[in-house]
Amino acid sequence: MALVTYNKLIEVFEQILTDTGFTKTEAELCAKIFADSTADGYLSHGVNRFEVFINTITDGYVQLGVEPERELALGSFERWNGKLGAGPLNADFSMKRAIELAKESGIGCVALRNGSHWMRGGTYGWQAAEAGCIALCFTNTMPNMPSWGAKEANTGNNPLIVAVPQEEGHIVLDMSLSQFSYGKMQQLEMDGKDLPFTGGYTAEGELTTNPKAILDSKRLLPTGYWKGSGLSILVDLLVTLLSSGKSTAKIGEMEAEYGLSQVFICFDAKQMNSDNRHKELVDEIINHVTSVAPVKEGGTIEYPGSQTRKRREQNMKDGIQINDEVWNTLLARI
Amino acid sequence: MALVTYNKLIEVFEQILTDTGFTKTEAELCAKIFADSTADGYLSHGVNRFEVFINTITDGYVQLGVEPERELALGSFERWNGKLGAGPLNADFSMKRAIELAKESGIGCVALRNGSHWMRGGTYGWQAAEAGCIALCFTNTMPNMPSWGAKEANTGNNPLIVAVPQEEGHIVLDMSLSQFSYGKMQQLEMDGKDLPFTGGYTAEGELTTNPKAILDSKRLLPTGYWKGSGLSILVDLLVTLLSSGKSTAKIGEMEAEYGLSQVFICFDAKQMNSDNRHKELVDEIINHVTSVAPVKEGGTIEYPGSQTRKRREQNMKDGIQINDEVWNTLLARI
Repeated sequence: MALVTYNKLIEVFEQILTDTGFTKTEAELCAKIFADSTADGYLSHGVNRFEVFINTITDGYVQLGVEPERELALGSFERWNGKLGAGPLNADFSMKRAIELAKESGIGCVALRNGSHWMRGGTYGWQAAEAGCIALCFTNTMPNMPSWGAKEANTGNNPLIVAVPQEEGHIVLDMSLSQFSYGKMQQLEMDGKDLPFTGGYTAEGELTTNPKAILDSKRLLPTGYWKGSGLSILVDLLVTLLSSGKSTAKIGEMEAEYGLSQVFICFDAKQMNSDNRHKELVDEIINHVTSVAPVKEGGTIEYPGSQTRKRREQNMKDGIQINDEVWNTLLARI
Repeated sequence: MALVTYNKLIEVFEQILTDTGFTKTEAELCAKIFADSTADGYLSHGVNRFEVFINTITDGYVQLGVEPERELALGSFERWNGKLGAGPLNADFSMKRAIELAKESGIGCVALRNGSHWMRGGTYGWQAAEAGCIALCFTNTMPNMPSWGAKEANTGNNPLIVAVPQEEGHIVLDMSLSQFSYGKMQQLEMDGKDLPFTGGYTAEGELTTNPKAILDSKRLLPTGYWKGSGLSILVDLLVTLLSSGKSTAKIGEMEAEYGLSQVFICFDAKQMNSDNRHKELVDEIINHVTSVAPVKEGGTIEYPGSQTRKRREQNMKDGIQINDEVWNTLLARI
């Protein structure tokens, strides 16, 4: 493993992005998004995915030099066309606009069509919380999960994000709707380990904890069986209808995963806090969650965002452990 | 089992509601909500819960003769105080208002504090879809589920609803964030059956499919383990902060489950459909989901709302099977 500082990561990402054709401003923003995800411990959507991200541009799926265009404006709701631009740039732009709308009138919603893969969804939750907004975001994906009762992938694992700002550190949930991600299963397979719970089916249709069997069958289990399955279908409907964009079905007809549909909903926490109870209410909820006995003696009870903040703090101090091959491949580009 | 027609159900509910002190208009609406949930097959939140609902009023937890009051108006967002009025009346009112706001300017959001238990959450999803709106609704509950890693109930199973209107029949997801409901587990225990998947813990902390063991330990499993756990905490934060209402923690301090916090978000499907693609996109998604091979040969692939519509059609035609004791208890009241 290579031990890399956050600043070094930024430097390498910026250089490669600039060489690929990003403007200086775009490269700075995109490098920060990839470095933050890496420092937060989401390497699969950070440094480990950077090479794939660059390839979607050089392969011509994701476009440079395009600007999002507004197609519909209805007060607090706007629809934008991302014109197949870089996913993180499009998503950051859309969240910024949802934040602006929320600051104007309490609530703001941006639906984006022709976005691209936004990498780590949590990025936009932290962005909203940092700007003092409570936020909900959704994206669809290519078909990568069979719905409950289906044998083949007919829906996406369509991630959803919910974020709440808090002085001591924001609370951010970032979850996809499969029980385990492909990245997690690949990691466990490499380590020769089983999944801690059933995560999909064998080719014969039996539930299994064997990551290789699931990677081979491509039959991931929706989180909570029929529940995550239903939610994934509704998330696809929501993002596709609000953006008038590509559905998971349509994305599945293309040769790569791009042109996704996304929705960003923001509430200005300041205007919601008209009776000055925000901090008291957040503390009340988090204290209640964390104050009961843990299952394991001496254990701690975590909540969404709490572990991310700890990892970030440690990685910013100590540097980040990155797979040698991944790091050397990036260094070879500059 | 008693075989009861929809109209007879309405008649009995209305009589009891009027006798309890509801106005004629309130009794008609409330009776329809309970009868619809029953006809849709959700007896646990329909006829089987009617007696408990009436008791929350006669016990003085839920108030009659109150009107919701607007406490904050910010364009497309409004906060209302339900003043501990009847849950279904408050929720129906809030969704109607969210629909009005959405019809005015594309998007509408109502946050309600001091609501009460809204019974079946799907009611308000069908209501929105029937009015031509795409909707998201959330509620919190009393603490009834341990978060991931916790030994005692420190969060709620906080249901969420997503609804999409469609000519052939609306698509409505209504899910709570525990893997199984108390109602489902009680039913399986009575029938001497195990849960189809692990649904909670024994008193010794082992995952189990035995409904009695879970009902005894009160340690329900969140849907999708850590995922439903995280989402339940964020739903509680969302509804509590937007409504400035009671959190699950606060509800747990009271002697009954009332005064809940709820959020209703609506999008006017007509204004979202500026390029006239709504029907085409919904069909594209649903056809893609249902057209792949099912796991079981000869099986069908369902999606949220499809089975509800079938049950409703059959029950309206054939009448509804109701437990004799439940039905006789209601008849004894009139």
